[in-house]
Amino acid sequence: MRLSRYFLPLLKENPKEAEIVSHRLMLRAGMIRQQAAGIYTMLPLGKRVLDKVCAIIREEQDRSGAIEILMPTIQPADLWRESGRYDDYGKEMLRIVDRHERDMLYGPTNEEMVTDIFRSYVRSYKDLPLNLYHIQWKFRDEVRPRFGVMRGREFLMKDAYSFDLDYEGARAAYNRMFVAYLRTFDRCGLKSIPMRADTGPIGGDLSHEFIILADTGESEVFCDRAYLEMEVPGADVDFSNDDELAAIVGKWTTPYAATDEMHDEAVWSKTPEDARLSARGIEVGHIFHFGTKYSEPMGATVMGPDGKEHPVSMGSYGIGPTRLIAAIIEASHDDNGIIWPESVAPFGAGIINMKPGNADCDNWSEDLYTRLANAGVDPLLDDTDERAGAKFAAMDLIGLPWQIVIGPRGIGNGVVEVKNRRTGEKQELTPEAAVNLVAGGA
Amino acid sequence: MRLSRYFLPLLKENPKEAEIVSHRLMLRAGMIRQQAAGIYTMLPLGKRVLDKVCAIIREEQDRSGAIEILMPTIQPADLWRESGRYDDYGKEMLRIVDRHERDMLYGPTNEEMVTDIFRSYVRSYKDLPLNLYHIQWKFRDEVRPRFGVMRGREFLMKDAYSFDLDYEGARAAYNRMFVAYLRTFDRCGLKSIPMRADTGPIGGDLSHEFIILADTGESEVFCDRAYLEMEVPGADVDFSNDDELAAIVGKWTTPYAATDEMHDEAVWSKTPEDARLSARGIEVGHIFHFGTKYSEPMGATVMGPDGKEHPVSMGSYGIGPTRLIAAIIEASHDDNGIIWPESVAPFGAGIINMKPGNADCDNWSEDLYTRLANAGVDPLLDDTDERAGAKFAAMDLIGLPWQIVIGPRGIGNGVVEVKNRRTGEKQELTPEAAVNLVAGGA
Repeated sequence: MRLSRYFLPLLKENPKEAEIVSHRLMLRAGMIRQQAAGIYTMLPLGKRVLDKVCAIIREEQDRSGAIEILMPTIQPADLWRESGRYDDYGKEMLRIVDRHERDMLYGPTNEEMVTDIFRSYVRSYKDLPLNLYHIQWKFRDEVRPRFGVMRGREFLMKDAYSFDLDYEGARAAYNRMFVAYLRTFDRCGLKSIPMRADTGPIGGDLSHEFIILADTGESEVFCDRAYLEMEVPGADVDFSNDDELAAIVGKWTTPYAATDEMHDEAVWSKTPEDARLSARGIEVGHIFHFGTKYSEPMGATVMGPDGKEHPVSMGSYGIGPTRLIAAIIEASHDDNGIIWPESVAPFGAGIINMKPGNADCDNWSEDLYTRLANAGVDPLLDDTDERAGAKFAAMDLIGLPWQIVIGPRGIGNGVVEVKNRRTGEKQELTPEAAVNLVAGGA
Repeated sequence: MRLSRYFLPLLKENPKEAEIVSHRLMLRAGMIRQQAAGIYTMLPLGKRVLDKVCAIIREEQDRSGAIEILMPTIQPADLWRESGRYDDYGKEMLRIVDRHERDMLYGPTNEEMVTDIFRSYVRSYKDLPLNLYHIQWKFRDEVRPRFGVMRGREFLMKDAYSFDLDYEGARAAYNRMFVAYLRTFDRCGLKSIPMRADTGPIGGDLSHEFIILADTGESEVFCDRAYLEMEVPGADVDFSNDDELAAIVGKWTTPYAATDEMHDEAVWSKTPEDARLSARGIEVGHIFHFGTKYSEPMGATVMGPDGKEHPVSMGSYGIGPTRLIAAIIEASHDDNGIIWPESVAPFGAGIINMKPGNADCDNWSEDLYTRLANAGVDPLLDDTDERAGAKFAAMDLIGLPWQIVIGPRGIGNGVVEVKNRRTGEKQELTPEAAVNLVAGGA
């Protein structure tokens, strides 16, 4: 993409309304624009990151055997009356009356609808296990939306729902999602730590929040330093092997890890003192087994091998992609701007043409642009007439992993300057060497 | 994908509510499920087609220079009060009051919001031309939603909005979208014909509906047979060359073509009688220049080269991807089911294992599955215990371009049976030859 033809509205001033760094940087880098309280447009740069994040989420959901569907945003209230949640949900639910005076709502979540889909098609335990997911907009009418897309009202959510004959099957489904989540956040460049979450009246131990550590995190968390060294399962993990997955989950749930709400000083004190890490964290995912909470009232049953009808045992698994983008920024930025992990960067590299109009600079820039594009890097070329300082500041702000500066002096010496955004390290390299370095990702 | 692990809920009976063939086939093939009047879930097979269609739309928008954003579904009513449309829009607009008693609405379209985005960032003619598009859910509370996703209430829409300094620029922007639309529908396997549409109080000739011909189409259309032979611009069309694009648009708007509403018998009678084609058509896209209709009341102006402020000249350009899927089916089906064009088929080929459990059949099926996947075909393997007749009927119904049947008799002869869904032609081929045929797409 050439910047002269792109739409990247950067803000020079720090927006007053932004209380946290991710909100500030997303506004300043031209990623988002607020349209109403807690309701945002994803501008071109933000849309690109969102696509990258969603692609990773989708690949890992698919790998684990979940199947993608797409449920609508508007739901009939009657479904929620069946589960009993229509009256319980309170003011966070956006309630709507259509032109025929039917009660509708903007889905804050989809347990009821997906259970309705399940019960209308699935009859036998032979069709299980089943896990259906979608990535769709949700609306929760928060009383005080804030922190940008970290706590918006309209937000994107990946929600998956598993259906199994019994608790044992549901536990295996839970483990598959657990491992998929470890891989998803790892691929987004985040170190996530699964922490036991409240299961409320459901009981049991199958509820985990995935927390990433960030100095600016919203809540206090306590965990064993062992987590920082644990290896995330590779792409070759066998999702059809329940025992292998149970072992991974066992490993990742053994050391101490708790959010503020679930923290237990007595247990914590048994962790060796030098292994204790108390830090700030941000929730980026939540997985939850709720058994027959919806299947029973809504009559979602299957015939078991015993010839009897069983309400299916269910779980739900959520990630907020828009929120995840903000979390990545909280975990990866400096005073000059965002520092994108390569896997989710909106462009692979930025090229700064120091003197547009100068034939050498233009030719070298175009040549490098083509080479990088051919190498699969997807570059952003700053071919504008801005002054050099502004161009450098803009590139730092939007945080592409690599910056390549092309100017007359370097061309005279046959080199370009390559800067690594994360380390700040600069090297003078021939264009060939620059492409090799950037495309190699090392 | 292995069918035993997939979620493909086929219906054996013809659903009573389906009045048109695309609605009937989408329900029967397990592509969609109605959740409320005019509100649908895309089931896994439908979601796959939707992704393919959206990818084509996106590629052609990007190629033409449009830039993708993502605006929210919920909009503040105040924006629509600025344009004057809040009161005009009538009952099709889904109006919502949030918990703080603010008037909101579910966007039926986005002219106001995109104009608001534009005016808050763009100041100078030097930043033009600009075309912003998004693919997002819309809601129009139709009094009588019907025909499945052809006329739903919640539907996906690609809407693009162009901003230019003056009419001349807007006309060039219009031509870019015109050509992008020709390419988009062509790539979806459709023959589209641009037909002049009403411009109402705006006037001028810059409004076209793109109509595809289908015997089951919703409206009567009249056009010159010359359109059937016209060549659609290739991927090498130069979107930076206004003259080249104007020539293409000129060619595609010269022969007679009109919908029922715009039909003019006097002009039509000048078309040679043997060139006259009157047929049924379905609207799949609409492009429209509306000038300063929104920029003027909303104050979206730029500084021109003359140093004065000018309200920008705008156009909007819509395609409904969910509707487009139905249109493709209307144009391409037979008594046995859907016949997908290769470019939008949910899977590239179906493999039918005639005897799951038979070691030879299983091995051959798995081997062919791997080979096709490696060749980029993305196969669906029917590894279920259904009887042969049901398997054949299901494959015909879901309409994958190729079917490959693997049974003990063929294996004895070293061959599989390959059927072309469109022509019905069957060939016995070695697995290697089958992969070459299917992957070659010929």
